[in-house]
Amino acid sequence: MKLNLALLPGDGVGPEVLSQAVKCLQAVEETFNHQFIYREAPIGAYAIDKYGTSLPEKTLDLCKTSDAILFGAIGDPKYDNNPEAKTRPEEGLLELRKSLGLFANIRPVKAFSSLSEKSPLKKEIIENVDFIIYRELTGGIYFGEKKTNEDGTIASDLCEYSEKEISRVAHLAFKAAKNRDGKLTLVDKANVLESSRLWRKVVSKIAESYPEVKLDYLFVDNAAMQLILNPRQFDVILTENMFGDILSDEASVIGGSIGLLASASIGEENALFEPIHGSYPQAKGMDIANPVASILSAAMLLEHHSLFEEAMAVREAVDKALKKGVVTTDLNEKSQYGTNQVGDFIADNI
Amino acid sequence: MKLNLALLPGDGVGPEVLSQAVKCLQAVEETFNHQFIYREAPIGAYAIDKYGTSLPEKTLDLCKTSDAILFGAIGDPKYDNNPEAKTRPEEGLLELRKSLGLFANIRPVKAFSSLSEKSPLKKEIIENVDFIIYRELTGGIYFGEKKTNEDGTIASDLCEYSEKEISRVAHLAFKAAKNRDGKLTLVDKANVLESSRLWRKVVSKIAESYPEVKLDYLFVDNAAMQLILNPRQFDVILTENMFGDILSDEASVIGGSIGLLASASIGEENALFEPIHGSYPQAKGMDIANPVASILSAAMLLEHHSLFEEAMAVREAVDKALKKGVVTTDLNEKSQYGTNQVGDFIADNI
Ligand SMILES: CC(C)[C@H](C(=O)O)[C@@H](O)C(=O)O
Ligand SMILES: CC(C)[C@H](C(=O)O)[C@@H](O)C(=O)O
Repeated sequence: MKLNLALLPGDGVGPEVLSQAVKCLQAVEETFNHQFIYREAPIGAYAIDKYGTSLPEKTLDLCKTSDAILFGAIGDPKYDNNPEAKTRPEEGLLELRKSLGLFANIRPVKAFSSLSEKSPLKKEIIENVDFIIYRELTGGIYFGEKKTNEDGTIASDLCEYSEKEISRVAHLAFKAAKNRDGKLTLVDKANVLESSRLWRKVVSKIAESYPEVKLDYLFVDNAAMQLILNPRQFDVILTENMFGDILSDEASVIGGSIGLLASASIGEENALFEPIHGSYPQAKGMDIANPVASILSAAMLLEHHSLFEEAMAVREAVDKALKKGVVTTDLNEKSQYGTNQVGDFIADNI
Repeated sequence: MKLNLALLPGDGVGPEVLSQAVKCLQAVEETFNHQFIYREAPIGAYAIDKYGTSLPEKTLDLCKTSDAILFGAIGDPKYDNNPEAKTRPEEGLLELRKSLGLFANIRPVKAFSSLSEKSPLKKEIIENVDFIIYRELTGGIYFGEKKTNEDGTIASDLCEYSEKEISRVAHLAFKAAKNRDGKLTLVDKANVLESSRLWRKVVSKIAESYPEVKLDYLFVDNAAMQLILNPRQFDVILTENMFGDILSDEASVIGGSIGLLASASIGEENALFEPIHGSYPQAKGMDIANPVASILSAAMLLEHHSLFEEAMAVREAVDKALKKGVVTTDLNEKSQYGTNQVGDFIADNI
């Protein structure tokens, strides 16, 4: 198979972890006789510094003409505490999601048994945890109108949802639940928010077309508790953009390291794959960042193009690295392996 | 001292846990020679069923003329999945907060060492955890304009904050931090939300008047992770209404039971005290709900009126019950004690 891949390294440790994913994709090309074409483009703080905008037009064009996008990380602390900043690295990622219509962010959460000591949760809590979060990604308070009054004393953000925005991601989540354990949990705040009540209305209607799936509801505050008290109860979680942002990062603690978690952002015509960890600026260029999340993002990319055997080879190589202790220091303080060596080991085992 | 107390039992297990708190307050009256006058009023689903509104006028009037309010719980599942419901029990609580100007919700989070096996988190994670959450309670997306378009296909909620709303709760949080370990963490989503950027601007300005306090910032998604990965890092957390709702319920897992956590909601002229657990309708009338959160809410009430010795007596009686195993089944499956017996034991030990 021939695939055109856009590479967006971004900021912080993005470039170094992305390189490891590319190594693994190259190993897949060789072993399975595919041809992947890699084209790189700037985004985020890196793009602001160089081109004055966090999402240059040519980056967006490249993404539009690619079969899939592999993304590194975004964000730079120098923009975080500057309320006067005219542009922010994160805007590039948000614009990219919106322009490409990447409406569903999919984050699998699984406890790797070889790493259960790393989790802050007790072993009996995380054993056999295996669920997926479907987060709506192009609506809600992220993209609603933002306002500040003239003298800068009042600011607001609008959280808006339409039936259409809700139903397209809901259908994906129901399909996933149907192929898994048949349980879907809608997380909202319907006792307070009008938009949440629309979510409940639309999702409960859609449920009628999926009789195999059992739908239940959880308020977001309760969900934040249940994720830690009893994560095994979940199969597929469906939620809106902001709640999904919070809950999926929270859920990342289950596995013991955020450095292991990959995500896919899917639209009608495009798909982007990225580690869920951020740009981790303190580690930039130090060869210590965990490349596994980025490599597993590449595995999700392969699956998205129905290259299941290839994805499995990547996953098995990752498992081998974890079992053999070829891991970065976030997983084992005494480890001697750096980002590059872990990437090499995994690529060599594909 | 003479105090006029409004009692709002509300729904589910609210009435039964509130009764235990009243028992303890009566014990305090006797032991310390005070006079508390208790006046009860309806709220929530109970009030809807009886009077057609979740906050009857006479309830609000009673609260306004009281020195403090002791609250049970609110909510009934029969309203949750009914998008057509004209009124909801929760509205009563939200209206009460707004009408009384209870702008700061204060939730202490502490790990009781006698209960560390109950927590889903590992012992070494929760040891010596001791922080307070200051949640803004009368602004943000809870109270912003709510809209649904004519054909019910689009719904929205506005998240709005003013400098004034931010600064009054921020001052309380800074003062608390000054009297504690001198560390304040502002949780927001300033990389996405305009309202969060206003929070950062206002709070960082206020910080200049509290040179003893070290201010730092955390994005809400990261905060949801850090609360579980390393809760000891926190001293005082300050955040807006919705993030506070989610994070404080999440933080409740640290102690092992949400049945232990109390909260205070403070305004210029009024204050309300309530357990953070909900109405727990499945347990209603079964004499199994944990009364400790409600009793500790009464202790916070006493502290609010500077009755520190009295509050300490209540806290010590609670500690004794926990240490002696006089607890409800949420803390010990094999326990024989019900809500009433635990309440009696604690009251007797004051
Ligand atoms: C970087 C930030 C804008 C982004 C988000 O909030 O969506 C990130 O936290 C994520 O979850 O991908
Ligand atoms: C009952 C509900 C409206 C309320 C809230 O969201 O504020 C509750 O969850 C709380 O935290 O007190």
